[in-house]
Amino acid sequence: MRRPLITFTTDFGLADWFVGTIKGVALGISPQAQIIDITHSVPPGSIRAGAFALRSAFRYFPKGTIHVAVVDPGVGSNRRAIAVRTRNYIFVGPDNGVLSWALALEKVVAVHSLDHSEYFLPQVSRTFHGRDVFSPVAAHLANGLPVAKLGWKLPSHVRLPWPEPELQDSGIVGEVVYIDHFGNAITNLDTASLAEATAGKQVEVLLGRKRVGSLSSCYASVPKGRPVAVIESSGFLEIAVNGGNAARALRIKVGTVVTVRSPR
Amino acid sequence: MRRPLITFTTDFGLADWFVGTIKGVALGISPQAQIIDITHSVPPGSIRAGAFALRSAFRYFPKGTIHVAVVDPGVGSNRRAIAVRTRNYIFVGPDNGVLSWALALEKVVAVHSLDHSEYFLPQVSRTFHGRDVFSPVAAHLANGLPVAKLGWKLPSHVRLPWPEPELQDSGIVGEVVYIDHFGNAITNLDTASLAEATAGKQVEVLLGRKRVGSLSSCYASVPKGRPVAVIESSGFLEIAVNGGNAARALRIKVGTVVTVRSPR
Amino acid sequence: MRRPLITFTTDFGLADWFVGTIKGVALGISPQAQIIDITHSVPPGSIRAGAFALRSAFRYFPKGTIHVAVVDPGVGSNRRAIAVRTRNYIFVGPDNGVLSWALALEKVVAVHSLDHSEYFLPQVSRTFHGRDVFSPVAAHLANGLPVAKLGWKLPSHVRLPWPEPELQDSGIVGEVVYIDHFGNAITNLDTASLAEATAGKQVEVLLGRKRVGSLSSCYASVPKGRPVAVIESSGFLEIAVNGGNAARALRIKVGTVVTVRSPR
Repeated sequence: MRRPLITFTTDFGLADWFVGTIKGVALGISPQAQIIDITHSVPPGSIRAGAFALRSAFRYFPKGTIHVAVVDPGVGSNRRAIAVRTRNYIFVGPDNGVLSWALALEKVVAVHSLDHSEYFLPQVSRTFHGRDVFSPVAAHLANGLPVAKLGWKLPSHVRLPWPEPELQDSGIVGEVVYIDHFGNAITNLDTASLAEATAGKQVEVLLGRKRVGSLSSCYASVPKGRPVAVIESSGFLEIAVNGGNAARALRIKVGTVVTVRSPR
Repeated sequence: MRRPLITFTTDFGLADWFVGTIKGVALGISPQAQIIDITHSVPPGSIRAGAFALRSAFRYFPKGTIHVAVVDPGVGSNRRAIAVRTRNYIFVGPDNGVLSWALALEKVVAVHSLDHSEYFLPQVSRTFHGRDVFSPVAAHLANGLPVAKLGWKLPSHVRLPWPEPELQDSGIVGEVVYIDHFGNAITNLDTASLAEATAGKQVEVLLGRKRVGSLSSCYASVPKGRPVAVIESSGFLEIAVNGGNAARALRIKVGTVVTVRSPR
Repeated sequence: MRRPLITFTTDFGLADWFVGTIKGVALGISPQAQIIDITHSVPPGSIRAGAFALRSAFRYFPKGTIHVAVVDPGVGSNRRAIAVRTRNYIFVGPDNGVLSWALALEKVVAVHSLDHSEYFLPQVSRTFHGRDVFSPVAAHLANGLPVAKLGWKLPSHVRLPWPEPELQDSGIVGEVVYIDHFGNAITNLDTASLAEATAGKQVEVLLGRKRVGSLSSCYASVPKGRPVAVIESSGFLEIAVNGGNAARALRIKVGTVVTVRSPR
């Protein structure tokens, strides 16, 4: 029989005991659960980076996986905590948008508030709901508890705005939404928008006002040390440097404008 | 049936192959064991930081968990290695105090020296007892080996001194004992000492000579960027900055004095 | 029954969702697999560092373990992907040498190219074969798929040159091949070459032209803060600083020359 799977996406970092602790709590309640870290290195408090990581990873897990995301600068305040059942998964986290970019790709079945403290640890701190609320709730769900038992049904959940690319005279204009460990700059320009804007014609990619080149098929399509625009593994246009760190070399930040247009 | 749980708390870091290797060794001996990392990012050689991490995490694991802590600057010298059975857990590590802050919260049943090399790897290096001694011993314990089989019974173990807060005329005076990944500064002032010192009255918290404010219920009780004193998740007074990094913003170090007193 | 074991050695880092994703993929195909990270912190694109980590760790895993190493700057280009059956293990990765230092210590039984896309994810990106190719292939192997089903049998695989120490008039001359998390500098001088060169006589160790001292048995053989030469846990000569960071203190880099000779 398949063991229930729980994933964690947090900004807890790996320096302290936080991540180990939430796993101890989960396994105490659901000894059969299998726990996988998506990442714990979301920049502290960055709901957008957490939302992007979860959105990029969740579909690669088996149906029935319980995805927990805790980037929670409002912990202990009156922000809501939720569990969301979708067609394929269950999502658990604070209702601050961190789940929303993943949820936008799923069919949402029900949103419930985490009200019933019998599914929390007996003592709930004001600073560590990952340990005291989210992990125990996920473990109870792994044991088969229906989402509806957790609390009131809610009509909706908080949605983080997604920066939509814009079709302008100059081409299709987007921005960098995430910079990864390699220094690769992932944009909001997905293959669908690109296809629509370029109609399969040859294109050139601009970073700010600087030409990066046309769209390449892989990093090694250009010589070492040269910038290259590729479609990354989630289907977004990405600016990289072959064998290098594009963010550092080209001074790219989240928000840097990227344009795709027909060559002039 | 519950699979036996082994946790690791080390300063091995995640950059190299050390952590993977100790897990391979453990699973070779005890294929059913489930291994959870508490942390491997204890600052190199910092027995106190390792002891604090273990102390903060161990209680959140199910009874019977085998907790291994390896912060071991004396590896290969004549420092002792021990296994300690307590009412709820087994602890394994060098006898240099790294286990002692956790042990102080447990009822110790027996302390045994790790003498019998049939429970080690066949070849024991002088520099990596995590792989050659502690991990195999933990795996044998996970297989049900009694602690008493490991070696001589010892009358006690090395205790790391805990910095006790002091009740002075100015109030109760403690210090920062740990700075976490978020830059939050955890002190040795626990809720019991605070209750005794303040008798439930309103208090003010001083960092060195600087007023931080009164005790708040959560980070979001103060505006973004402002310092805040809260009770953290293990029950200690903590200085944080809402949405920021207190250690950096307020130049806090381990050892920085923190006072709690009645407002003047 | 023993669960099949898969290890990962990559340069994906822990900052993003890459590592979580490859695990989700593997568990979707092989729910019984147990996944262990050797490390994901190989410096980006450093095939040598990845090869050294894998070489240092693989033998400590049970027979039958499937070792996956993905340091793959040529991803998406026409570099080959391979699976290698050895007497004790299966290795999977790009055919760029990252597997070769481990393979040199094993008896290779068969090398196969990864040709058959029915063992990949249905959609293969050009930038993330860890997720789309290597992890699914490893999971199918964990399910019992024979290596020969993956693709054509190859006569050999790419070998990374190993820097052999040289016996010179001045002694045996080697170099630093890896610097670990503690700042310890591991050389290519193994116990066999040392034994041959020194015939058991007393030796002195030079870092560049600077005397480090003789060979010590453990870090704590010298006072705190002093350099020390020891045999590290894989059997190589290592330069360390007791309680310190040798690479930083002594300005050691990969490639720094280390000589062992009879004292003058």
